[in-house]
Amino acid sequence: MSDQATAKKPKRIRPELPAGFRDYGPADAIAKQGMIDVMRMTFERFGFDPLETSSVQRTEVLTGGEEDSGKIIFNVKGSQEQESESDSSLRFDLTVPLARFMAANPDLPKPFKRYQIGTVWRGERPQAGRYREFMQADVDIVGSSSIGADAEIAMIIYTVFKSLGFSDFVIRYNNRKLLDQLPRFADFPEKKIWEALRIIDKKDKIGSEGVRKELQKNFIKKVADKILEFLSPDFSPMLQGDEFSEYEEIKSILGNTGFDWEKFKLERSLVRGLSYYTGSVFEVILTTVPEIGSVCGGGRYDDLISQFTGQKIPAVGVSFGVDRLFAAMEKLERYLWRKTRTQVLMLRLGDWTWTFDIGEELRNAGINTALYVGDDQTFEGQLAYALKKEIPYVVIYGPNEAKKSVVAIKNLITREQKEIPRNKLVDYFKKVFPSP
Amino acid sequence: MSDQATAKKPKRIRPELPAGFRDYGPADAIAKQGMIDVMRMTFERFGFDPLETSSVQRTEVLTGGEEDSGKIIFNVKGSQEQESESDSSLRFDLTVPLARFMAANPDLPKPFKRYQIGTVWRGERPQAGRYREFMQADVDIVGSSSIGADAEIAMIIYTVFKSLGFSDFVIRYNNRKLLDQLPRFADFPEKKIWEALRIIDKKDKIGSEGVRKELQKNFIKKVADKILEFLSPDFSPMLQGDEFSEYEEIKSILGNTGFDWEKFKLERSLVRGLSYYTGSVFEVILTTVPEIGSVCGGGRYDDLISQFTGQKIPAVGVSFGVDRLFAAMEKLERYLWRKTRTQVLMLRLGDWTWTFDIGEELRNAGINTALYVGDDQTFEGQLAYALKKEIPYVVIYGPNEAKKSVVAIKNLITREQKEIPRNKLVDYFKKVFPSP
Repeated sequence: MSDQATAKKPKRIRPELPAGFRDYGPADAIAKQGMIDVMRMTFERFGFDPLETSSVQRTEVLTGGEEDSGKIIFNVKGSQEQESESDSSLRFDLTVPLARFMAANPDLPKPFKRYQIGTVWRGERPQAGRYREFMQADVDIVGSSSIGADAEIAMIIYTVFKSLGFSDFVIRYNNRKLLDQLPRFADFPEKKIWEALRIIDKKDKIGSEGVRKELQKNFIKKVADKILEFLSPDFSPMLQGDEFSEYEEIKSILGNTGFDWEKFKLERSLVRGLSYYTGSVFEVILTTVPEIGSVCGGGRYDDLISQFTGQKIPAVGVSFGVDRLFAAMEKLERYLWRKTRTQVLMLRLGDWTWTFDIGEELRNAGINTALYVGDDQTFEGQLAYALKKEIPYVVIYGPNEAKKSVVAIKNLITREQKEIPRNKLVDYFKKVFPSP
Repeated sequence: MSDQATAKKPKRIRPELPAGFRDYGPADAIAKQGMIDVMRMTFERFGFDPLETSSVQRTEVLTGGEEDSGKIIFNVKGSQEQESESDSSLRFDLTVPLARFMAANPDLPKPFKRYQIGTVWRGERPQAGRYREFMQADVDIVGSSSIGADAEIAMIIYTVFKSLGFSDFVIRYNNRKLLDQLPRFADFPEKKIWEALRIIDKKDKIGSEGVRKELQKNFIKKVADKILEFLSPDFSPMLQGDEFSEYEEIKSILGNTGFDWEKFKLERSLVRGLSYYTGSVFEVILTTVPEIGSVCGGGRYDDLISQFTGQKIPAVGVSFGVDRLFAAMEKLERYLWRKTRTQVLMLRLGDWTWTFDIGEELRNAGINTALYVGDDQTFEGQLAYALKKEIPYVVIYGPNEAKKSVVAIKNLITREQKEIPRNKLVDYFKKVFPSP
């Protein structure tokens, strides 16, 4: 620890954040926390338990052991470590650390259903509107290859968006097993599949016409036409296996649950970058603010855990983008912005003990009560503070009130003020703010 | 993104964490989350609002601009960044990022009361039992120099420990203004104060006798004796100013609140490393597990924010060590360990839709209900799963039950099983698990 008191240093430090990082002030943090609470409750309703994986992982774990994996991560190094000592990085998602945890704990009962709401980091170059630190809320089912698990994930997605109050969303669905048949169907070599998928994946960015052009540039006309036929919404596939039917099966499993099928769409061009998907792929778009991009995505990844164990452990799950959802809420003006969760400000107009005693009484009754502990000793100053903070009520108890055994209560929304007997104070606020 | 499916790579990756990091599995995460919920509720009861600062900060901000600050931090670097591009690090506490936020947002109404529960990182060398990533829960009052703010912090500390169910704790208190008078009192040069404090601070490690020896080695006998007199519990200080009285003042302010004064002790040897404290210093020890060390600490730091603004903004606050408290709870066997928050497992013994329908009904009634979506289709296998997961109830609805319009419910604690009419299911569980 440094021995010099920091204040003695004359040099000023700029109070700036690194590019690509942000703070959430109280109003934002309150709204974001509200969203997180809804998600957490929904996940627990579905019988998922929390898991908290380490933020820092061995780099090899994150990159799948490939030197040049193309993953955009943040490397971390202790300020007292030698370069060679360890190779660790911040997690870029919550799925890979889950896969590592499953591999390290092979005896967990399966299916293992967990949720995790946590921060992830991407070491990409900062650009406008893109953050390098953000929060994800993940639900996954590990150790089940059953389509029922895929259906449950679809149901959770639907329930979370409904519970958050969204009505304009669409859950896009595709299946990697379907895409895997593309080379055979369109008659091109297996090894060129990612070349095709990378083009198809750009549909949201470059449109159907753009996809057509790029396909025609990269494949001979006959093949490009076949790929386009495959992608066409009118195309009714006569493909092998049960790929197409997985979509129908999910619909039939959830048939009676009140799921709105208008919101669940087969989208054959949906690829979603990650190579680890092996079956169902999900993606959610908010139709009124599509510019925000995908607010939830995931799918089935039956081979990811085997890179650690050699043993196949099937898994399916999705990730909700908490910060993108927050941005959407903000854009849709879906929040009644509250600057504070404080319900009452207890002024300090006399003896400190008066303030603390009344505060303690109200808190014990379940009322969020701030005491005015600032340096302004005037009534006007303290009232102005409550107004700026948008605290709905102030309680006034000074020498005048003490003499009369009353307290004055001021409602800062209506600006009404009234006196009530000192011993009726708790009852009064219990009625104003009934416990849920 | 990588194009090669990871599973194709033959090389196995060791599923290990870097040294000094850990995961919290479901049982641990449930218990830890319970603690966090109590803290969050307490902080909000006291009228504190959440703030979420960035995990990554400019290194200069964290080190106070000193090249060789001795701070043990983790530097981070995007995998696509040049060495020189930025100098960023992970926060090592939540106080410095708060100070930066306050400096960057000078117009916030003050006193600004915020809490933050978040992860911090220390890049020190890994050693047994010490983690390099842990969670802190901080409450701070910024912009008040009033002793009422110090008293409120003391009250919050007391309330948090009571609310967490601890009875064997002691809040140690000291005041830097008192320590600042040591050179004058013991007659040694001002600039040697940190030499003395560093020795005094070791008391918990080396004992009173060790402190005596080290003082005698570093100071002439007359000075060492005076310092020891100053530290003695019998010493009744006749010092200048109101330093000693701040302790008494806090006690008098909180006089009627039910605060147990046995738990609030003046400890003159309490220094707490950080140089930024300027007044009150707090530290909490659990007396039945003192080996865990300090589980909460903090104090007044009136000069910290001025390193950014040049302007003095007084502040006081403390930090609860969530992981240490968790370790204490574990050691004291204070937790009824619960492997899951799931209340009911709905088996799958027939049509998928039966499982999903009943699940949906129960969830809508507020019951945490897991559906069995695994690969084992036998009744025995699914029951064994519920037992391993320690889920208290299973619901059985197969072709036999469907025919009779009943459901079977098995209590896995008593092992009793009974049939009830299908349409009484929700009522049954509402009675077993009444909503709070």
